[in-house]
Amino acid sequence: MLQPTPASVPAARKQQMADHTTPLVRDCWYVAALSDEVGRELKERTLLGKTVLMYRTQDGQPVIMQNRCPHRNFPLSKGRLEGDQVVCGYHGMHFTPNGKCTFMPSMNNAPANARIASYPVVEKAPLVWVWMGDPAKADPATVPDTPWLADPAWKTVSGQFHVGTNYVAMHENLLDQTHFPILHAGTGIGTPAYSKSTMEVRVEGDVVHLVRALLDSPAPDIYGVPMNLKDRIVDRHSDGYFASPALHYAHARIVNKDVRAGEREEYRFTITHIYTPDQQGSIHYWWFNSRDCNLDDAGADAFLVEASVKAYQEDVDALTWIQETVERETEPFEELSFGPDRPGIAMRRILLKLANEEARGDAGPATPAAAQPVPAAAGAAA
Amino acid sequence: MLQPTPASVPAARKQQMADHTTPLVRDCWYVAALSDEVGRELKERTLLGKTVLMYRTQDGQPVIMQNRCPHRNFPLSKGRLEGDQVVCGYHGMHFTPNGKCTFMPSMNNAPANARIASYPVVEKAPLVWVWMGDPAKADPATVPDTPWLADPAWKTVSGQFHVGTNYVAMHENLLDQTHFPILHAGTGIGTPAYSKSTMEVRVEGDVVHLVRALLDSPAPDIYGVPMNLKDRIVDRHSDGYFASPALHYAHARIVNKDVRAGEREEYRFTITHIYTPDQQGSIHYWWFNSRDCNLDDAGADAFLVEASVKAYQEDVDALTWIQETVERETEPFEELSFGPDRPGIAMRRILLKLANEEARGDAGPATPAAAQPVPAAAGAAA
Amino acid sequence: MLQPTPASVPAARKQQMADHTTPLVRDCWYVAALSDEVGRELKERTLLGKTVLMYRTQDGQPVIMQNRCPHRNFPLSKGRLEGDQVVCGYHGMHFTPNGKCTFMPSMNNAPANARIASYPVVEKAPLVWVWMGDPAKADPATVPDTPWLADPAWKTVSGQFHVGTNYVAMHENLLDQTHFPILHAGTGIGTPAYSKSTMEVRVEGDVVHLVRALLDSPAPDIYGVPMNLKDRIVDRHSDGYFASPALHYAHARIVNKDVRAGEREEYRFTITHIYTPDQQGSIHYWWFNSRDCNLDDAGADAFLVEASVKAYQEDVDALTWIQETVERETEPFEELSFGPDRPGIAMRRILLKLANEEARGDAGPATPAAAQPVPAAAGAAA
Repeated sequence: MLQPTPASVPAARKQQMADHTTPLVRDCWYVAALSDEVGRELKERTLLGKTVLMYRTQDGQPVIMQNRCPHRNFPLSKGRLEGDQVVCGYHGMHFTPNGKCTFMPSMNNAPANARIASYPVVEKAPLVWVWMGDPAKADPATVPDTPWLADPAWKTVSGQFHVGTNYVAMHENLLDQTHFPILHAGTGIGTPAYSKSTMEVRVEGDVVHLVRALLDSPAPDIYGVPMNLKDRIVDRHSDGYFASPALHYAHARIVNKDVRAGEREEYRFTITHIYTPDQQGSIHYWWFNSRDCNLDDAGADAFLVEASVKAYQEDVDALTWIQETVERETEPFEELSFGPDRPGIAMRRILLKLANEEARGDAGPATPAAAQPVPAAAGAAA
Repeated sequence: MLQPTPASVPAARKQQMADHTTPLVRDCWYVAALSDEVGRELKERTLLGKTVLMYRTQDGQPVIMQNRCPHRNFPLSKGRLEGDQVVCGYHGMHFTPNGKCTFMPSMNNAPANARIASYPVVEKAPLVWVWMGDPAKADPATVPDTPWLADPAWKTVSGQFHVGTNYVAMHENLLDQTHFPILHAGTGIGTPAYSKSTMEVRVEGDVVHLVRALLDSPAPDIYGVPMNLKDRIVDRHSDGYFASPALHYAHARIVNKDVRAGEREEYRFTITHIYTPDQQGSIHYWWFNSRDCNLDDAGADAFLVEASVKAYQEDVDALTWIQETVERETEPFEELSFGPDRPGIAMRRILLKLANEEARGDAGPATPAAAQPVPAAAGAAA
Repeated sequence: MLQPTPASVPAARKQQMADHTTPLVRDCWYVAALSDEVGRELKERTLLGKTVLMYRTQDGQPVIMQNRCPHRNFPLSKGRLEGDQVVCGYHGMHFTPNGKCTFMPSMNNAPANARIASYPVVEKAPLVWVWMGDPAKADPATVPDTPWLADPAWKTVSGQFHVGTNYVAMHENLLDQTHFPILHAGTGIGTPAYSKSTMEVRVEGDVVHLVRALLDSPAPDIYGVPMNLKDRIVDRHSDGYFASPALHYAHARIVNKDVRAGEREEYRFTITHIYTPDQQGSIHYWWFNSRDCNLDDAGADAFLVEASVKAYQEDVDALTWIQETVERETEPFEELSFGPDRPGIAMRRILLKLANEEARGDAGPATPAAAQPVPAAAGAAA
């Protein structure tokens, strides 16, 4: 068992943790869209409660702006693009990508005070990141790096959900290993041997780092099938990161303990989960499963998509039911927390701290930018 | 006409009566389910605004518990039964029927403080009664008796509705005889002769008792058809009871005034209406039509089901429209009440008194338990 | 361009203008229904947040009453008509057209205090006008006249929408000429020449009067096709009126500058828009397109219906999107206004003034009754 703890941690609220009612952290880079979702068509999406307009300029820069004309509130996404400018569909006001009005057909001069918000955007393909908070704090240097998603030495399969739940519960689910044998009992990602893993929780600034290792154990299907190592004995090393309110990723390293002809000694997987709140109680969720082996194996792609969707759908269903449950409760209640909840509690304290800092207006520097590197070599596990 | 009264009773609110906004009475035994709805599958239902989990133990005891794991709010009805215990579908916490946690897979010892509410339950087949209020006041001796529903000397047909209305208006409808010739004009339960009935209203503690009699009158279809006494002259005696916020029943006795070969002198019917609030503005509604004659007559069964559903559907429609009407009104208004509303007003005063006592925390003993007996013999009517 | 103005008018709220949150003006004659919608069937409709019952007496008078029985709140529209009286479907209370209860089956005497509101109604076919505000202020002399809708010298085509928006934005749309070339770019009602019109805005009491003229210009399709003057040179004169919160109409006069054999020198069109708020954010909308020429031309009828529906649907869509946009915004914002918005701003100040007067209880005389006459002869344009 994982760090069994007979005594319970005191109840959640008293522990000063974020929950589904905590204001969303806005001063953070969130993924607004996948790169290929943003093009020369005007697209509407709601991010952190604001409805925005997304498009790409003629030279390919993604633009994300307020989707409301300042004149008579027409949603600009119902207008059209003219070159790099958005033209309102009601009275024809033109706006540049930075939100400045340059032309209004019924007036000789463009109104100088007509502006719309244009949100800071940084694209690191395949992700388009946006800053919906205080623009003065938007430092492009702090946009998270996810190089494995674009590196030709890796192959990534992916998918997305729109989930009726808050991001707190979704992040906690990712930091929580103890639900695997129950919620995912039928999915084969929580093998009995899994409970013998060692686990270390490191809080590194506003990042929660989970270090796990399971040695000399049969490869579970989720790794064994795509690597053709089914039921073979491997060491598994994993570094998972709550990197920011927007991002969780985990580097896994599978060490082949019985290398046969033509086989590699080490295989690496990185799982990436991206959450962008739509409203307080719903999120846009993108997942990515990246591997550095069998890149051209279409069978491995298909297996990984199917297995991922099956497991993540179980999480999505569970968290949706939980959100429904807490939303319909009219009387106050507290969550009980236990030893194995430690990683999630660490994350929830960070989320509450960030939300409180924002409410007080004294938010410090943004979340760190650098992705934790994929471990370089077998045996280097923390 | 029924006790015609030219002067109106002063307006409803000033009369201190419950209406659709009055808090629901919680310190009361309510029917949670029919016996055959509760089995070895986990079942979810909302009762008085709380979502509960229902199942039956291996030895057949019905269990009704809070449908929310105290750890991370997973709805336990999405988990599974293991013997008599409920296993949470998220992290596998086990709960006994009395709500105690006995096992959590990720911990060596079950957390001592992990408990869920288990509600007092008493089964009197075919009804499973639950106490959703202050458990200290839940006295099994006060669970209503409805022996006619289980007595082999009686035959019962039944049905159920989920109705978008408050229980106040539904109870008032049952105590109100004057809507029969209008709302049920096409159903044949309000014959012209019916308006010649005598009626007495007795308030007996928190019970409202309606005593009615109609002598030497043709049997209406609702009694005449199943008894093969269609259009024959009978005496009708009826004792109706607002027994509690959860229960209304009426004993009818039909006296055959012209007994022919093979006929009985007296036939008895008991109608039972059970209301359990789902939320403030909606109820679970079960009805039962019981008779002590022609027990094996499938034609009588079918006739009584069809006639009951037709009439009760008219009530359900009317009360749903009324609820929609009062919910969409934004300006305050008052109901006018008249003499014939006396039984309903008595009931509404009791409901308000009970709600007020509960709000003040000084609720007295629960509603009386004993069902009023079916009258024993012809001619004994009050 | 129309009165180009480089400097913007200060922001909307500071300008003391009505917006979608301003309380609806109630002391005003509104159209409840078309004459042919009201007959011997009970009909329910919501007007200014109140649900009413509409029917016509045996001698043809339209009646509009509160749709709620004062006894137990049954919606009277679910009852039935008996002669000129409405009979409640629950207990059979009878109400005269003026709302007085005359009979209750369960009582010897009708309850003297049982009354329902009957709203002042004036029919000027094809319109049934109602006064939902303070009845003491309902002066039939102030019901707007729209004689062209009933005059056999005119032919009218019409249609209706139920629109999810507030009347403020709809009225502003009608007073706003500058959206034509953008929103209606594909409908051909905003020709390039149109922007050369002269326009004068006159505020006449609580009426906003727009006077426009465009001389020696090709007839647009909307006039040219039904008059068989397609692409011919005409003078266009138009007098548009925000006549009341309920009514906008515009008289257009088209002067044929090159009269050929069998042609008239002048053609007149009158466009009528009627808005009746359902709730704060939705309206019943009826439109009418009336002409004094080619009265029997079914092709002209069909063309005008198709062209009108196409253009008005564009307005309805735009205003619905705008309402959705302002309703989902949680942060305060201001509209920017510009010179061309002057007519709309004048109207919005009147709407705010009327709402404020009503809130203070010092509303003056109602809106003027007389329709502005259709101009009598060519050349008389303002």
